[in-house]
Amino acid sequence: MPHPLSTSVSASVSVLAFDIFGTVVDWHGSIVREMAQLHPQVDGDAFALAWRAGYRPAMARVMSGELGWTRIDELHRMILDGILPQFGLQDLSEDQRRHLNRVWHRLAPWPDSAQGLTLLKRKFTISTLSNGNIGLLTDMAKNAGLPWDCILSAEVFRAYKPDPATYLGVARVFDLAPSQVMLVAAHHEDLSAARACGLRTAYIERPLEFGAGHIKDVSPQAGNDLHCKSLLDLAHALGIA
Amino acid sequence: MPHPLSTSVSASVSVLAFDIFGTVVDWHGSIVREMAQLHPQVDGDAFALAWRAGYRPAMARVMSGELGWTRIDELHRMILDGILPQFGLQDLSEDQRRHLNRVWHRLAPWPDSAQGLTLLKRKFTISTLSNGNIGLLTDMAKNAGLPWDCILSAEVFRAYKPDPATYLGVARVFDLAPSQVMLVAAHHEDLSAARACGLRTAYIERPLEFGAGHIKDVSPQAGNDLHCKSLLDLAHALGIA
Repeated sequence: MPHPLSTSVSASVSVLAFDIFGTVVDWHGSIVREMAQLHPQVDGDAFALAWRAGYRPAMARVMSGELGWTRIDELHRMILDGILPQFGLQDLSEDQRRHLNRVWHRLAPWPDSAQGLTLLKRKFTISTLSNGNIGLLTDMAKNAGLPWDCILSAEVFRAYKPDPATYLGVARVFDLAPSQVMLVAAHHEDLSAARACGLRTAYIERPLEFGAGHIKDVSPQAGNDLHCKSLLDLAHALGIA
Repeated sequence: MPHPLSTSVSASVSVLAFDIFGTVVDWHGSIVREMAQLHPQVDGDAFALAWRAGYRPAMARVMSGELGWTRIDELHRMILDGILPQFGLQDLSEDQRRHLNRVWHRLAPWPDSAQGLTLLKRKFTISTLSNGNIGLLTDMAKNAGLPWDCILSAEVFRAYKPDPATYLGVARVFDLAPSQVMLVAAHHEDLSAARACGLRTAYIERPLEFGAGHIKDVSPQAGNDLHCKSLLDLAHALGIA
């Protein structure tokens, strides 16, 4: 597949920053699988979608100042406690809630993620740039075999994406111009916010992000430097094997 | 070598946090070698020691509030600019100064470091806990083959060791009690400050930290959970291989 911009992009970019939930790991499928094991009476698909639906509103409460700085582990737990009664799980013990909340630390990678990152790491510094907290991302990487060079998180910048402090924070950490950093994500609004800060962008198609029952539109949108089917495709587009 | 505390320590600790300069990498030898290549007329041993001697006073200026938050890359550069005239290098260009300052990103590991960390990573989460900035530590890890699970730095906590915010920050990032974190360092004062925060501690003997002409006293001191000759010895003491 031809990627006309790939040569110039590849030569000028030195850090690839990756969105994680949905882009590198399959949050929906992982939660559905865990629920099928732990609570088979529950509709895992609806449960996963309900949990994730609380994510943006919770971060908005932090960024508006209504909540003080709060990490995703704590936000996930607040949302979880709120939805459990809707799924008949209001009697879960504290230990059960803690264990279930940490499913986000155990999310499985998409089939191409570990191999794609391993290839990309040969030529670029690869970092997370996720709203997930540092401990969550570190546990996930160990569990899923993701070979990050660096774990960057909203927790480092005390701001959630799409706040410019996150995208510009990556450039500043590595003492680079924004155009020397590329955000890799499966979400156009994340990429658009990064582009407004001067970063390069690569869209990754993840049609199954919300499960096979809710196929996502992964059509190209104008403005991204690259549009790829997987992280292996991205490695190819950036000139690696 | 018997390590009577190792079984209980190994069972209760889940994160190992490593001091870097002197503990994992050989700053003195690396700087001497680069100076021999770049500026062979200069006494590399005296130059390395002079540069490092400015390190604590510079961090003290940050922590006292005299300077705003300043990263080690910038502090190293301020110190470098200050000592160049003493070594007849006052005419170095901006590019030469920038290149030389980044020697700290290129420091070589001690011979046991990469293998020791690879072993320790099997059983523990291994993280940096360094006053070096994130970009420096990431570049160093890529260059030296150090397989960190996570890069934690004074830059994350906006405080330099031995400020308690750094040691307690590691425990907080991983949602652990301080006693579930062990600091690994070649400096007793760093270990002592960590211990005062409730962390476990392991001392690593690095008699050559200041060069063969200035052998460091590496005698055991009371209070550390472990006293080891190398990171391989630490892996052994913690029950690995």
